[in-house]
Amino acid sequence: MLDVRDAVKAALKTQTVETPSWGYGNSGTRFKVFAQPGVPRTPWEKLEDAAKVHEFTGVTPKVSLHIPWDRVDDYTALAAYAAERGLRLGAINSNTFQDDDYRLGSVCHPDAKVRRRAVGHLLECVDIMDATGSTDLKLWFADGTNYPGQDDVVARQDRLAAALAEVYERLGEEQRLLLEYKLFEPAFYTTDVPDWGTSYAHCLKLGPKAQVVVDTGHHAPGTSIEFIVAFLLREGKLGGFDFNSRFYADDDLMVGSSDPFQLFRIMHEVTKNGGLAPAANVAFMLDQCHNIEAKIPAVIRSVMNVQEATAKALLVDLDALAAAQREGDVLAANAALMDAYNTDVRPLLRELREEQGLAPEPLAAYAASGWRERIATERVGGEQAGWGA
Amino acid sequence: MLDVRDAVKAALKTQTVETPSWGYGNSGTRFKVFAQPGVPRTPWEKLEDAAKVHEFTGVTPKVSLHIPWDRVDDYTALAAYAAERGLRLGAINSNTFQDDDYRLGSVCHPDAKVRRRAVGHLLECVDIMDATGSTDLKLWFADGTNYPGQDDVVARQDRLAAALAEVYERLGEEQRLLLEYKLFEPAFYTTDVPDWGTSYAHCLKLGPKAQVVVDTGHHAPGTSIEFIVAFLLREGKLGGFDFNSRFYADDDLMVGSSDPFQLFRIMHEVTKNGGLAPAANVAFMLDQCHNIEAKIPAVIRSVMNVQEATAKALLVDLDALAAAQREGDVLAANAALMDAYNTDVRPLLRELREEQGLAPEPLAAYAASGWRERIATERVGGEQAGWGA
Amino acid sequence: MLDVRDAVKAALKTQTVETPSWGYGNSGTRFKVFAQPGVPRTPWEKLEDAAKVHEFTGVTPKVSLHIPWDRVDDYTALAAYAAERGLRLGAINSNTFQDDDYRLGSVCHPDAKVRRRAVGHLLECVDIMDATGSTDLKLWFADGTNYPGQDDVVARQDRLAAALAEVYERLGEEQRLLLEYKLFEPAFYTTDVPDWGTSYAHCLKLGPKAQVVVDTGHHAPGTSIEFIVAFLLREGKLGGFDFNSRFYADDDLMVGSSDPFQLFRIMHEVTKNGGLAPAANVAFMLDQCHNIEAKIPAVIRSVMNVQEATAKALLVDLDALAAAQREGDVLAANAALMDAYNTDVRPLLRELREEQGLAPEPLAAYAASGWRERIATERVGGEQAGWGA
Amino acid sequence: MLDVRDAVKAALKTQTVETPSWGYGNSGTRFKVFAQPGVPRTPWEKLEDAAKVHEFTGVTPKVSLHIPWDRVDDYTALAAYAAERGLRLGAINSNTFQDDDYRLGSVCHPDAKVRRRAVGHLLECVDIMDATGSTDLKLWFADGTNYPGQDDVVARQDRLAAALAEVYERLGEEQRLLLEYKLFEPAFYTTDVPDWGTSYAHCLKLGPKAQVVVDTGHHAPGTSIEFIVAFLLREGKLGGFDFNSRFYADDDLMVGSSDPFQLFRIMHEVTKNGGLAPAANVAFMLDQCHNIEAKIPAVIRSVMNVQEATAKALLVDLDALAAAQREGDVLAANAALMDAYNTDVRPLLRELREEQGLAPEPLAAYAASGWRERIATERVGGEQAGWGA
Repeated sequence: MLDVRDAVKAALKTQTVETPSWGYGNSGTRFKVFAQPGVPRTPWEKLEDAAKVHEFTGVTPKVSLHIPWDRVDDYTALAAYAAERGLRLGAINSNTFQDDDYRLGSVCHPDAKVRRRAVGHLLECVDIMDATGSTDLKLWFADGTNYPGQDDVVARQDRLAAALAEVYERLGEEQRLLLEYKLFEPAFYTTDVPDWGTSYAHCLKLGPKAQVVVDTGHHAPGTSIEFIVAFLLREGKLGGFDFNSRFYADDDLMVGSSDPFQLFRIMHEVTKNGGLAPAANVAFMLDQCHNIEAKIPAVIRSVMNVQEATAKALLVDLDALAAAQREGDVLAANAALMDAYNTDVRPLLRELREEQGLAPEPLAAYAASGWRERIATERVGGEQAGWGA
Repeated sequence: MLDVRDAVKAALKTQTVETPSWGYGNSGTRFKVFAQPGVPRTPWEKLEDAAKVHEFTGVTPKVSLHIPWDRVDDYTALAAYAAERGLRLGAINSNTFQDDDYRLGSVCHPDAKVRRRAVGHLLECVDIMDATGSTDLKLWFADGTNYPGQDDVVARQDRLAAALAEVYERLGEEQRLLLEYKLFEPAFYTTDVPDWGTSYAHCLKLGPKAQVVVDTGHHAPGTSIEFIVAFLLREGKLGGFDFNSRFYADDDLMVGSSDPFQLFRIMHEVTKNGGLAPAANVAFMLDQCHNIEAKIPAVIRSVMNVQEATAKALLVDLDALAAAQREGDVLAANAALMDAYNTDVRPLLRELREEQGLAPEPLAAYAASGWRERIATERVGGEQAGWGA
Repeated sequence: MLDVRDAVKAALKTQTVETPSWGYGNSGTRFKVFAQPGVPRTPWEKLEDAAKVHEFTGVTPKVSLHIPWDRVDDYTALAAYAAERGLRLGAINSNTFQDDDYRLGSVCHPDAKVRRRAVGHLLECVDIMDATGSTDLKLWFADGTNYPGQDDVVARQDRLAAALAEVYERLGEEQRLLLEYKLFEPAFYTTDVPDWGTSYAHCLKLGPKAQVVVDTGHHAPGTSIEFIVAFLLREGKLGGFDFNSRFYADDDLMVGSSDPFQLFRIMHEVTKNGGLAPAANVAFMLDQCHNIEAKIPAVIRSVMNVQEATAKALLVDLDALAAAQREGDVLAANAALMDAYNTDVRPLLRELREEQGLAPEPLAAYAASGWRERIATERVGGEQAGWGA
Repeated sequence: MLDVRDAVKAALKTQTVETPSWGYGNSGTRFKVFAQPGVPRTPWEKLEDAAKVHEFTGVTPKVSLHIPWDRVDDYTALAAYAAERGLRLGAINSNTFQDDDYRLGSVCHPDAKVRRRAVGHLLECVDIMDATGSTDLKLWFADGTNYPGQDDVVARQDRLAAALAEVYERLGEEQRLLLEYKLFEPAFYTTDVPDWGTSYAHCLKLGPKAQVVVDTGHHAPGTSIEFIVAFLLREGKLGGFDFNSRFYADDDLMVGSSDPFQLFRIMHEVTKNGGLAPAANVAFMLDQCHNIEAKIPAVIRSVMNVQEATAKALLVDLDALAAAQREGDVLAANAALMDAYNTDVRPLLRELREEQGLAPEPLAAYAASGWRERIATERVGGEQAGWGA
């Protein structure tokens, strides 16, 4: 077992989790946004919070930005500010859904002027990537329709394809486009990229620099996300994850809080199929809202949940698993997986952190750090960051 | 056939649909609220719009209010203002979810002070009913939890029961309490009144003045709403409907726009089981959002959809249906229902309107009335009404 | 309106619906199969029943076969028998799920011998196509797993791809392979072709003679089937439909019986995007079970429901629709669609049938024909056809 | 921690799990039943297998019977046969869905003669209970409809109520009626007892000897089963569980195999709300199918999964949980629950078994016992037990 533990720890040391700038700001539902004390007012303050998460977990060196929520005058300065705190700027997330022009869509809008504007924003995001050194452009489109007949499904696909092609052309050598899909919300009848198949089909036509992003909260009930993950890895088309969890719709809860076994099964497909290797270039990103719980500890908890699921996945005895599968022994194969899942990996993770000079318990260490009290005191006045909806 | 048509028209003349004040204001998703020109700034202006809907449909004499969104200094004056326009004030809808205190719930909150405040608001709503002459207190609670363990499910039921009992006691002779249920949103793990069974169980204990409200968008996928409707009518516990429609979650689309056949099946159970009779006291209310479509015509369309579904339900040949059911002739019984559904009832409804001195086509008549242009011009400045989220 | 009606009738005359041989036999759930009097005992008798459906509807000249349920010694004789009754043999449906060998899958089974046997069966089906003149090989695989870990998702995809490639190679010039997908059942954890994306990805690699089949009962709750239909038509990858309807899972009810509006929306995408044209080569097939209702009339009703939905779709004023879409008038665009849906097309279809020398009411004509009584009397003894599960 | 472990072990010693006789026989889907070697041919042989499960787990002294699948001439002899093997006969499960008469229902059938027959069967089941000493009559009705209009929802409720009342009257002092509910299957439009609310309402009217059974596979997607469990315990109306697990519909997989966290949350509500106490009289029953996996070890694994979930639930620090809930500390409250869930309880369970004189690893002990080989050799010829569908 000693060797296995060492191998697991070695693999875990190579994994990083990217946290989202908007996870540190206020969020809510259409019914209410509950503001919290100490919430950042600026992208700079968001980076400070992200640095705290990295300080205590040791595995979150990258931060995703969302434009325009994180718009600043000088992105190079922002990148430098991040670097001073041991961070890098990660994926740039576009936003083509909060402008009054976008009532009926953005890149799929029936009006060419609106589409032009939306594409312009996407190109601006690539400009920002050039300035920040980000390699990933993450595209999620709120485009869709609310009523049957509202617009032409096929025409919208044509517009989407044209917009994506233009953005793809603009990408630099080291940059890629990650296309997200989502079943519904905010559109309630059709969504223009509703499922992985649609995203995959577009990425295939665009070329090797276009890949699919799997947001774990964006599927129909009953969908096997791990199947999609395995399928995309087989095709070389898995760009990364937007991790979060859900009981019903796109609930955006902390990763692993609703179905930790599903998270484990996903990570099992990732680890078994080479997705953890740096060469696979799979981005493990969080995308979640902390509407009622404290934000920084919620991010820390999510990161820990990803780590625990990964550790369990790494513990699976793949030889025993393969042997049972080969023999068609359903119960033994299932047991090989469950043995790893039922293992308590928290001691191993504490050990790993101590080996890396970190406190064994990130949440306790954060609580003891005084940061929560400090930001509650210092960040007074100004406007707290949020979605601006 | 002539007699049947007359009977259907006679029955339709007894049906009224209550429209919601908030259906005339701005609404949206957590991502964006798209404001529209001409949207009311005050409860008084909402009543003006509701009066227009009644003017063109002839069947919407009542308007539901939502407190505090419709808070005014003088509710008697508001009722008089409504009466001058041929309207009455309908159900009073409480709101215990938009105060900062309500982050963890209202009547189910762990803190007694917050519960006290929430109950106070509910009692205030009964005071308002006394002033407006409203008979229905419609209670929807956003209470619930987002994470396993967050609170004690049973303790929350105890608190809920205590709050409801106190409000029930306060009701006047002619007043009743309508308890709504909802599967999820804004709570994402548990909801304190998640289904009709929970609402029914509480209403049963409260007494005859407590009844269940069925919001057609508040169910799990696959739920037969018409079964619930039939069951509650059999028990004398169906207080009314919050009509809207959905493809996925609580999409709050126009009534009948996503599944008109389901609406017909619901109305079939209503008409077959006496729910249209005034004595049944079933309130046919709308509760929907018009995020991207024009609001007044969307309400008119919804009202027409309810009417069309009701007309089709009234056309069902109940004798033929019962005979086929008795004989166990599955195809003939289904055909009896489908014959009515497949009938185009729009000519009959045009005829009905003309008999009542109304324009046969409410939407065309509204478009020709100039009201849309007038409110867009006149309602400038001030703050447009909305959810205030 | 006259011209529109003529155009609609002309278009309807080009549409045919293929009925499934197994729709005339017994079927049921895992709980019970209720046998019915007069059910065919042989493929020959199934063709007799299918001929009756064609006699009364005039639009069902083709019959799908299922091997081995319809295995005969001489397929050329079977085709001739069909031709004598005005029928042709349609899609050949393979069955790799009822052999004891297939407990853990067929073409995806871990054991190469079982895969070999399964591929052998598929190749046999192409042999049968050569004999019957069928052009469509319809593949549905029950392959999948019941438990996490049971087998390797990626390895199963590899095996699937290899099997499909071998079968694809065997296809004749005029033959094609239609690959069906299904979310779940009989496999309960993963299914090897769970969604349209998986089927599409495989078909893309195979080549132009491989296309996707959409079974309307095989999706996760909330899936927009019409979106998939439109997307596949845009890609030239829609091979056809397995029509049926459902409230929950793969209920296999009569087409259009659970959500007639959905069927209309699907047919709207088909007609708007050229799917009705012979060149599009979209096969409109039924695949349903009549567990408790009389089989032949249930097939007739389903065929009529497809026709009615198609007629309504053809009535959509595409110019008005496009204009409203262009202007972003959500309500007008939706109204353009709903106007067609709300039309009662039964008179038009009666007219169409009379023009074609058919009885205007197929169900009444069938009931009057005495066929039901005749088969109940004559088909006594022997073993009724069924699934053989 | 020592005291906690002792307390957990003491509580676990009081829990028993009832296994179903049909879990030892063949089962499958509508597509195929895969027979297995060694499957029992008679109720007597089923008891032998159940005794093996009890021998190795030590917690399954009771076996549920299903009539007519377990019909014997002498039930007293069967009970004695069980007793000789350390077993008792548990719940009697009725079957009113496999007779040709029941095509349109049993106790809800439109024809009084069929209803009479169905009630007769239920009364026969009580007779059997008298003979076997069983105290629980478990009623699941397959009754429902497949098509809108097929039958009258309200009339069916009346018939259901009448049948239940008659059976209730027949119950002895120590006997009770457990009423199961199910969303769908085999009925595909409406089910006559589709949800807990319907079952609860009927049980309430029947009286204290009628209680609700929760089958964990019988809910709509998104339903919080633990909420229902907590609610019913609060009302004194939780009669017991039919445990199994599912990814999609009523998949009837091994308990805890699809969502072990959900099983834990259910057991948390049970243990927190007194459901483990003998006085609560909650029956922990299994109801599952082992279509492709070996049956006896699958039952053992399920029993172990129930035990592990119960052990974790018992490990929850209720004081810490309550304190965090009181303070509204969402993250701390969730963490209190997750700490218990993340604990590996397998060592504790091994210890418990050894203290009871059992082998620490039931599956290994069973594998080493030679029983599997013995029954495969001895049980040859005759007809294997199954559902007889």
